[in-house]
Amino acid sequence: MNANTRLSGIFTPNLVPLTAEGAINEPELRRYVDWLIERGVHGLYPNGSTGEFTRFSVEERRRIVEIIADQTAGRVPILAGAAEANVRETLKACEYYASLGVRAVAIVAPFYYKLSPASVYAYFEEIGRNTPIDVTLYNIPMFASPIDVPTVQRLSECCERIVAIKDSSGDLPHMIRMITAVRPNRPDFSFLTGWDAALMPLLLIGCDGGTNASSGVVPELTRKLYDLTLGGQLDAARQIQYDLVTLFDTMLYQAEFPDGFRAAANLRGFTMGTGRQPLSSEQQADMSTLSDTLQCLLANHGFADQPVRGCSPATIPRTADALRSMGALRESGSSQSDDVGRIVQGVVAELRRRGMM
Amino acid sequence: MNANTRLSGIFTPNLVPLTAEGAINEPELRRYVDWLIERGVHGLYPNGSTGEFTRFSVEERRRIVEIIADQTAGRVPILAGAAEANVRETLKACEYYASLGVRAVAIVAPFYYKLSPASVYAYFEEIGRNTPIDVTLYNIPMFASPIDVPTVQRLSECCERIVAIKDSSGDLPHMIRMITAVRPNRPDFSFLTGWDAALMPLLLIGCDGGTNASSGVVPELTRKLYDLTLGGQLDAARQIQYDLVTLFDTMLYQAEFPDGFRAAANLRGFTMGTGRQPLSSEQQADMSTLSDTLQCLLANHGFADQPVRGCSPATIPRTADALRSMGALRESGSSQSDDVGRIVQGVVAELRRRGMM
Amino acid sequence: MNANTRLSGIFTPNLVPLTAEGAINEPELRRYVDWLIERGVHGLYPNGSTGEFTRFSVEERRRIVEIIADQTAGRVPILAGAAEANVRETLKACEYYASLGVRAVAIVAPFYYKLSPASVYAYFEEIGRNTPIDVTLYNIPMFASPIDVPTVQRLSECCERIVAIKDSSGDLPHMIRMITAVRPNRPDFSFLTGWDAALMPLLLIGCDGGTNASSGVVPELTRKLYDLTLGGQLDAARQIQYDLVTLFDTMLYQAEFPDGFRAAANLRGFTMGTGRQPLSSEQQADMSTLSDTLQCLLANHGFADQPVRGCSPATIPRTADALRSMGALRESGSSQSDDVGRIVQGVVAELRRRGMM
Amino acid sequence: MNANTRLSGIFTPNLVPLTAEGAINEPELRRYVDWLIERGVHGLYPNGSTGEFTRFSVEERRRIVEIIADQTAGRVPILAGAAEANVRETLKACEYYASLGVRAVAIVAPFYYKLSPASVYAYFEEIGRNTPIDVTLYNIPMFASPIDVPTVQRLSECCERIVAIKDSSGDLPHMIRMITAVRPNRPDFSFLTGWDAALMPLLLIGCDGGTNASSGVVPELTRKLYDLTLGGQLDAARQIQYDLVTLFDTMLYQAEFPDGFRAAANLRGFTMGTGRQPLSSEQQADMSTLSDTLQCLLANHGFADQPVRGCSPATIPRTADALRSMGALRESGSSQSDDVGRIVQGVVAELRRRGMM
Repeated sequence: MNANTRLSGIFTPNLVPLTAEGAINEPELRRYVDWLIERGVHGLYPNGSTGEFTRFSVEERRRIVEIIADQTAGRVPILAGAAEANVRETLKACEYYASLGVRAVAIVAPFYYKLSPASVYAYFEEIGRNTPIDVTLYNIPMFASPIDVPTVQRLSECCERIVAIKDSSGDLPHMIRMITAVRPNRPDFSFLTGWDAALMPLLLIGCDGGTNASSGVVPELTRKLYDLTLGGQLDAARQIQYDLVTLFDTMLYQAEFPDGFRAAANLRGFTMGTGRQPLSSEQQADMSTLSDTLQCLLANHGFADQPVRGCSPATIPRTADALRSMGALRESGSSQSDDVGRIVQGVVAELRRRGMM
Repeated sequence: MNANTRLSGIFTPNLVPLTAEGAINEPELRRYVDWLIERGVHGLYPNGSTGEFTRFSVEERRRIVEIIADQTAGRVPILAGAAEANVRETLKACEYYASLGVRAVAIVAPFYYKLSPASVYAYFEEIGRNTPIDVTLYNIPMFASPIDVPTVQRLSECCERIVAIKDSSGDLPHMIRMITAVRPNRPDFSFLTGWDAALMPLLLIGCDGGTNASSGVVPELTRKLYDLTLGGQLDAARQIQYDLVTLFDTMLYQAEFPDGFRAAANLRGFTMGTGRQPLSSEQQADMSTLSDTLQCLLANHGFADQPVRGCSPATIPRTADALRSMGALRESGSSQSDDVGRIVQGVVAELRRRGMM
Repeated sequence: MNANTRLSGIFTPNLVPLTAEGAINEPELRRYVDWLIERGVHGLYPNGSTGEFTRFSVEERRRIVEIIADQTAGRVPILAGAAEANVRETLKACEYYASLGVRAVAIVAPFYYKLSPASVYAYFEEIGRNTPIDVTLYNIPMFASPIDVPTVQRLSECCERIVAIKDSSGDLPHMIRMITAVRPNRPDFSFLTGWDAALMPLLLIGCDGGTNASSGVVPELTRKLYDLTLGGQLDAARQIQYDLVTLFDTMLYQAEFPDGFRAAANLRGFTMGTGRQPLSSEQQADMSTLSDTLQCLLANHGFADQPVRGCSPATIPRTADALRSMGALRESGSSQSDDVGRIVQGVVAELRRRGMM
Repeated sequence: MNANTRLSGIFTPNLVPLTAEGAINEPELRRYVDWLIERGVHGLYPNGSTGEFTRFSVEERRRIVEIIADQTAGRVPILAGAAEANVRETLKACEYYASLGVRAVAIVAPFYYKLSPASVYAYFEEIGRNTPIDVTLYNIPMFASPIDVPTVQRLSECCERIVAIKDSSGDLPHMIRMITAVRPNRPDFSFLTGWDAALMPLLLIGCDGGTNASSGVVPELTRKLYDLTLGGQLDAARQIQYDLVTLFDTMLYQAEFPDGFRAAANLRGFTMGTGRQPLSSEQQADMSTLSDTLQCLLANHGFADQPVRGCSPATIPRTADALRSMGALRESGSSQSDDVGRIVQGVVAELRRRGMM
């Protein structure tokens, strides 16, 4: 149990290409896996949020991991998302993925119901005590019950099989708090960030790596950022981090997640197909505009040709322009118009339900 | 298409009794169904949030509706929760439940991912245009993507098969906005509230009924509240509404949802079994304290005997006392201690993810 | 100390007319006071949020109450907003307003810093023990530290001089919780709502009245709603409540608060002048559009002539249309575009500051 | 207009010592100023949130700046908080502080009312076009209307006198977005962070300095962190940043802000006096416990002697322990118990008010 065994590097939370009929596009998925590995990602991470695990059936989720494990053939480690409807089903998935030879599983905290830290602890403790394979906690509080610092600490103390946390909160002091709470007793415990917009500073304050959706689109860039940061070339790293924020913001905020990432992967030469969540005709038009913007951003880094009508400064946004054009999209009636509203409505209702008002 | 066909009355979002091994306890479920119908509920609503639909497998959800439809045998209408992993799977569930003769299905907005109004519309429109059975929209913004007023209006206009909305936000002006937006064009459209703490005033401003978890515990009381309110006996109704707030708050805020309701149903004579979400030993102790409190509250209405050690004023809380004792529970280390924290962490992370900060 | 002495009825949180130079327009304020009293408001409430108390100097706040007290001349009771920079200054204001003969003061919970319930209690307890005049607690959690149910109960028990709460949360179960917590021991304690969109149902579940910004624009309508509700004419009251939601939403959400109310008061024949918060040129254009919408809504009730270019159905919104046109305004680049965003940014930052992430 | 003129380094947002009667303790304030300058702070920042500007009168705020300007006597630059009730009063304060020779003023966005970006822009534009002195925007979204990225960019373009932003959101990608939006056109524009828990990484991604409350307590430590980070000694800097998170969290979350900082300044040898916000007797007891914890933390760095009863591991918290003991404090009835609750209630109410539910 030492620092050398820690999970580290950039794991790609991979997208799932679909056929015209909406089924898993196995050949394209295999081609995508090869492409990612060839471009330097340190590992793969099927059945994450980027992989839309909730929109597949139990059988499909298993099939996705089977394909990826088979195609990877040991070249890089695999972190397999294993969350199912309840503890019993989740443990069955752990067993199955262990049989496929993946390095570890990642398990998101319970979602839909928002659980207390005590319940989150009880849930992961039962898994941690019974899993046949290493477990990565997956903290993504915008979608699932949060895993707070004391809970991570307690879980790191109860269960040797719990070996890492992937944190998508993007909160830097929170990461510092987890590291100082856990590392003294568990030098083998790994801290991964899912928040691409702060990857460089998170690595600098002690993270071991990341599971970053951007690496499914620009694996060369995230790898370079990782290498430069660890190599102490901070001026060069900082500029890449700036560019990554612009690209990440554009993919994340100008379409429903993960459609912006799917659109960008199309531009890298893959046929991602239509996502499983239906889009209105307005949304489809928005996606086309977004695709042009993304093509210009990718062309900027040599990852795509410019679109035929060229890239004006307005098409290649600086970060603030990206935010502004996001506003502009909104103003033309796009689906983003109420994204904050609905987030907040969620809290509001939850709070009323819990009598906090 | 007129007001007479509207879904109305109190539908019970029924709990699911489990065996010691965690399987569906079919005989107890059948006994529970009879008991509810005999005590005056107007309908049943399996696979709602109270019924923990996300914690069952696809097959179990179908089995639950089969049992309830069989046992009900047409005595009351059934509203069957039909949300599955994606539109295709949801439509298959609609077809199956239609074949069982249920009155309508209820479909919660997409969850985990928080979708924009445009996506929520696209999702329900595709369902509304293809469903073989009447659909009730289910708006529960604390758990799922909100369905906002313009979206409800548009859906009521696109799709005749969409005939109702169950709204669990508890927000009164929001209900008024929906009613004034939809009713002029769709007099047959029904508005149901899932927020027991405001049932009386919501009925008074125009709701047709409710799907209220409390009716699974005190069906006599919710029925009486409904009848008194519609009969214009407001002074009597108001007092029952006050009492219901105290009972509801206690069941809702002093345990993870729906464990407080399960504990209270036990006190009414059912063997609900252990829920599917594991509890820590501290949480189990809290449940025992909560059970005493609930027993006193139920005894107050003649629905249970007092516990052997009696009910001090401290055990029978006024509403504010209930809130205070909730605080007290918290202070003794219970699982509630961070309920708000985790809610808010969710928003926070979502917002950061969406670049709103 | 009995129920008969309770503050009750509709108190108008009055706007302050300004001159072209931005000073208090005393003659117009006096004319406005007369107009309100003649149209049936039960009381006046200077230095509330509607009255923009934070944008005036200490001396101006005193002058506003002096003018209103003088002009009212005892015809209706006055509730004077008395919050100043700290307890000592607030108590000085209480003394001064007592000397002017107002019925009571209203004191908002501390703002800017968000205080815990313990601090909110300590603040009001010190005021409650030293005030020479009756105090109304003012709970407006969107702007100031919330006053929660146990805090209201404790304050009602410590301090006889604390005689009422004005609650602008609009949360109905919250009001029920306060009433059941306080009324048994303090039958003289009054509950007023500041949330016009739920006035009727709040009166029906036990409120004594309201301090409603709408009553500064359509005092005839709020008075009628109050009288019909108390008189048990619920069908007629319900329709007025529906209309009031549409009007209130339009005034509240289509401009910075309270500019929508100021625009509507202009349409009732007053010269409100320019508010103290600067507007961009875009915002000024939005205000002109809003004014047309408001004129049509007021004309609908006979409170204004139609604008010269008439009122199309698009100009006279149903409630949902109002919400939609709000969206439309947003889409044309108005100042509303980020209202939710900034609210949420506030929480986010607060939470990060408090380490909740 | 070039990068060399940028505001940079650590500005101390200084606390205000009070006498037993609650007045400004001028001799102690002068002694505190000398002590801070001798320990290496790069500048002083009176009338910030740490300085409780809202709890002083207009006259007192001016007196505080007079004292500090006089005592500093040009040794370090002064950034004077200048926000008053409205634009006109704020501009008067700018003129007065300019006459005292301060380097710049800092102006918080409008608070109480939560304004849209358009209104925030209009407010600062009017100030920026009329101020006789350089202006630092102050973004503290937990307390005041947020200043979003496009607004900062527009203000940087409209107004040369606006030369910096102090951002207390602590959000790292947000800082990156601001820098990439503003720096190309305004190389002289400075970015300061008010979020001590992320000072090192914020400096590493491009910030010019900070206004950090911790520097009023441990000026030696924040200066050392600043120097090590800029000097590229990242391993040493990282450890100090970890320690600073623990200290900062303890001061920030275990008492009402800024009372934890006041308690720690007492331990450094100053008589801060009683704050202007009253505390309950329970809160006073909590402060005594907190003081012991802080003394141990300070002793750890040689900034204080250990308390007479010593420092057990329980008294010297690791970060997660600090969080846990925060929970413990909560459980013993402290004032922190509802800090999140009240934050969220704020949003909730705001949202309801804005019709977002």
